Amino acid sequence: VDVGGTTIKGGAIDHSGQTLGAASLPTEASLGQDHGLAQICEVVRRATASAGLAREQIAAIGVATPGTMDIPAGIILEPPNLRPWRNVPVREVVHEAFGIPTAFQNDANAAAYGEYWLGAGRGMRSLVMFTLGTGIGGGIVVDDELLEGRHSHGAEVGHTRIELSQPRPCPCGRVGCLEAYASATAVVKRTREMLDAGAPSCLHGSPASPESLTARDIFRAAETGDFLAERIVEDTAFYLAIGAINMMHTIDPDMIVFGGGMIAAGESLLGRIRRHIQALAFPIPAQKTEIRFALLGGDAGFIGAAACARKLHLRVGRSPRSM
Amino acid sequence: VDVGGTTIKGGAIDHSGQTLGAASLPTEASLGQDHGLAQICEVVRRATASAGLAREQIAAIGVATPGTMDIPAGIILEPPNLRPWRNVPVREVVHEAFGIPTAFQNDANAAAYGEYWLGAGRGMRSLVMFTLGTGIGGGIVVDDELLEGRHSHGAEVGHTRIELSQPRPCPCGRVGCLEAYASATAVVKRTREMLDAGAPSCLHGSPASPESLTARDIFRAAETGDFLAERIVEDTAFYLAIGAINMMHTIDPDMIVFGGGMIAAGESLLGRIRRHIQALAFPIPAQKTEIRFALLGGDAGFIGAAACARKLHLRVGRSPRSM
Repeated sequence: VDVGGTTIKGGAIDHSGQTLGAASLPTEASLGQDHGLAQICEVVRRATASAGLAREQIAAIGVATPGTMDIPAGIILEPPNLRPWRNVPVREVVHEAFGIPTAFQNDANAAAYGEYWLGAGRGMRSLVMFTLGTGIGGGIVVDDELLEGRHSHGAEVGHTRIELSQPRPCPCGRVGCLEAYASATAVVKRTREMLDAGAPSCLHGSPASPESLTARDIFRAAETGDFLAERIVEDTAFYLAIGAINMMHTIDPDMIVFGGGMIAAGESLLGRIRRHIQALAFPIPAQKTEIRFALLGGDAGFIGAAACARKLHLRVGRSPRSM
Repeated sequence: VDVGGTTIKGGAIDHSGQTLGAASLPTEASLGQDHGLAQICEVVRRATASAGLAREQIAAIGVATPGTMDIPAGIILEPPNLRPWRNVPVREVVHEAFGIPTAFQNDANAAAYGEYWLGAGRGMRSLVMFTLGTGIGGGIVVDDELLEGRHSHGAEVGHTRIELSQPRPCPCGRVGCLEAYASATAVVKRTREMLDAGAPSCLHGSPASPESLTARDIFRAAETGDFLAERIVEDTAFYLAIGAINMMHTIDPDMIVFGGGMIAAGESLLGRIRRHIQALAFPIPAQKTEIRFALLGGDAGFIGAAACARKLHLRVGRSPRSM
């Protein structure tokens, strides 16, 4: 199960990675955490039913949620995207509800683990994933393990600082974070700044209201040769390359994966990112690290949650309570 | 054994971490790699003899060297600090010479592993170490494992980029790297720039020649209240805090350790680093991550090499060849 700010998605996935059934429900976080927990359990039931499986056929459940969280404890603490939830013992509640071993994970970590298991990172031993959306999430896999961190703050790669002297403000309240430069929100913001400064662009005319401008509009304008839009895409590729290189010089993974809505920008963005990485990274990682787009789209989260459940099952086997 | 640009240091260390004997010899890299390999083997013999041990009493040997390298292969590739060495099969040569299982590791990784085993990180499960000297080296330990990276470029934390818009040139040939801001060399360079710009300071008069200015002189001047020197120390603490925070938001370790010659600056530097981290990191890691100076000084490298040897021994036991 992947719990998002607006939707809870779930799938029943077998050991080989095949999705046998799926279900989704609105999160309706504003209705409170008891309602949300009930929705999570209902998604488990519906996904199981949609796969034609009995409860006894489920080896383990995995639930991924946004943070902040305490991963080992299975608790969401104060999730900005799930207000007003607070100190929600997700793992315990789901485990009690079904009597089945339950894994709990950060949603961006789970997406990385999903791509590692069945997506772009299949066959790799390590990867770092950047999920590019409203913000920038991250997940790091090294030797089959998610790097959760000791305080459940591992892989917050969107909030590594890349600028000291003229740092942009970040939605997290800090300044100079990668997210402040290269999220979809930041792409729109940087474009608006250039439009406001009077730079010529076809984006001045469309869309009708500047408030409705999206990253997709900008990437599309770049494809038509719009100079301002091309400049924005080029700068975005540079910022993402810096994020990638900082991970290549820290984690040095087999692969860097970019996922999230922004990869709809397509191969031209990926090609630009690769060129900057070639120019800026140490020669050996520059040559050997694979730079790819994610393959699983919005399913990466629940697939990764299932991968965490599978790992739990392989480690502990079925608990007596699940019989 | 820790192979440095000028000196090869070795120690005979028992399972509990006690150094029973030590030895060192000049590296004399310019005399070529065969000479260097002979010096490494001679340090092993002398350290063993100084401990009063017979060869049969040595369970395993660990050798740490500067890079670039292929850690799994046990080879130094093209080490800038050991010119003209090239493609040197260190592990194989040492293993052949003594018939004892031999571990090979990057020197900055080894220093981190030494601090993890017997130094500041004793009892921790994870740490990130910054070694502050002429450059900035790094080592990352997560759950008892060094993060070597898939291309032996893990933990090159001195070469993560922290500035986009006005990047300082780094000795590595790139720009904007942490090392370009916060190494001892960078501290001196930043100070010289401010002196050249005419900023008032007691450092104008002493030392006699501006070429001989050291980071130590600057930290000492700061202690006496020199305004320029204090500003430099404060900025250095800020840069190091940024480096630490980027690791806290990526690796999220139990502890950040600063080592190397520059920590002679003392508690005032550490206190300033901690204050910046408190102000700039996510609240939970800011509150829970320990920020410490290293404890093992220049012995961290060979102690860490021994820790790698110990780990190898615990994993594979004595090989038949060592009997």
